[in-house]
Amino acid sequence: MTKIDNATGKPTSLSAGPLFQYGIANAFINGVYEGKLTTADLKREGDFGLGAPNLIDGELTVIDGRAYQTTADGTTREAPDTLKTPFAFVSTFRADTVASLLNIKSLDELFLKLQALLANKSTIYAVRITGMFSQIETRAFSPVSSKPFKPLTQLLAKQHLFQYDQMYGTMVGFYMPPYLSGLNIVGLHFHYLSADRKKGGHVVNLRADHLKVELSEINGFHLHIPDTEDFRSFGFSSGNSHDLNVIEKGKN
Amino acid sequence: MTKIDNATGKPTSLSAGPLFQYGIANAFINGVYEGKLTTADLKREGDFGLGAPNLIDGELTVIDGRAYQTTADGTTREAPDTLKTPFAFVSTFRADTVASLLNIKSLDELFLKLQALLANKSTIYAVRITGMFSQIETRAFSPVSSKPFKPLTQLLAKQHLFQYDQMYGTMVGFYMPPYLSGLNIVGLHFHYLSADRKKGGHVVNLRADHLKVELSEINGFHLHIPDTEDFRSFGFSSGNSHDLNVIEKGKN
Repeated sequence: MTKIDNATGKPTSLSAGPLFQYGIANAFINGVYEGKLTTADLKREGDFGLGAPNLIDGELTVIDGRAYQTTADGTTREAPDTLKTPFAFVSTFRADTVASLLNIKSLDELFLKLQALLANKSTIYAVRITGMFSQIETRAFSPVSSKPFKPLTQLLAKQHLFQYDQMYGTMVGFYMPPYLSGLNIVGLHFHYLSADRKKGGHVVNLRADHLKVELSEINGFHLHIPDTEDFRSFGFSSGNSHDLNVIEKGKN
Repeated sequence: MTKIDNATGKPTSLSAGPLFQYGIANAFINGVYEGKLTTADLKREGDFGLGAPNLIDGELTVIDGRAYQTTADGTTREAPDTLKTPFAFVSTFRADTVASLLNIKSLDELFLKLQALLANKSTIYAVRITGMFSQIETRAFSPVSSKPFKPLTQLLAKQHLFQYDQMYGTMVGFYMPPYLSGLNIVGLHFHYLSADRKKGGHVVNLRADHLKVELSEINGFHLHIPDTEDFRSFGFSSGNSHDLNVIEKGKN
């Protein structure tokens, strides 16, 4: 594992931009499938990230400043700048740590080995993983068509699964700390793009003999709150902890 | 209730700056009482806000670009620029809505009437309330001295309570949406400063005949993640919801 020096002399943890996020995971998974942020907007905020196209028409992956849409028919194309998203997040990727992982037999095993590489579980990391995947399984959702939209858990039957063998590519993902629970997906979460950018999707499983892992530690989280009627009227429910209420009132 | 036009012609919801926050409520209330952000840093990010001084040495309130510290001896002074905080949040206050509230008999009643003024429960509001308070009760914590620090719920006996009659002043506070649970304090939360800036503290109760309420809708949340050993090693615990885990894996 190599810690890369930053040419500016600043601590490496300050070298990456903040995570920019549009939308809230808990609203998205409960049917807020339409947003106003465009792919062009998203690319202005970062060069590396994940998202969902409006109406969950597949999966969105941003890498090297370009956005790609992987749809349920198994194709991946560069997303039009006008494509909108209800939930997406990007950062400016600046690798501060590089490591090699060998002989990975599953996504769960990869996650365990990645967790061991993360020096600071209280912050955000962008994670880029490159190599030859002996096997990689991905998924993409079919779009929903009409309101009222069902929660995403009820649409898992509409996900399409893909399996690719011996394919060189890159996993684009993040580690999110537990305090972002509900806002984003806590822990590790990846999309995949083949080297030719023609295959991709949300990563469900994989095998690989040798992967290059690059970490980019992020010390800021910039949430842009959607200005849509669906988002405004979404009934967010989680409240304060009991402890916070006691402290707020100054008594039990 | 008057909706103020924005001179720029932009939607009023875009006129206020984002909420800038340093630290996480759940870490703070569980003993992370030392941070590296200074009052000078905080004032660069906004002119209106709340916080806690390091070692919970009283309460911190930012108004009109100045920061005030109210300590357990009942005094309020302008905070030195070098004062540090483990948890604070500010925005640039731009009133977009003004209302009058009459005959308020308690903090709970004020909260109910304020909730009715908030058009969008899915976003953040900065709230400034000005008037003659027939009575206002506040509190400030005594500082802790040595590690290990106890959780804040166990330090409520160390809070000092103050009661002031017939005092003109301003309440500085925020409405935070439920999805910021754990990160900040969900719902409404206020500190107080007298007009002469010599009295203040976290608001516990009040009575007032006529209050002017100004709301500033905020559509961004910028979290700066602390770079302290206490924060890095704090064991954040809340995980993903079951639904998020199912969707992440693509199956139950």
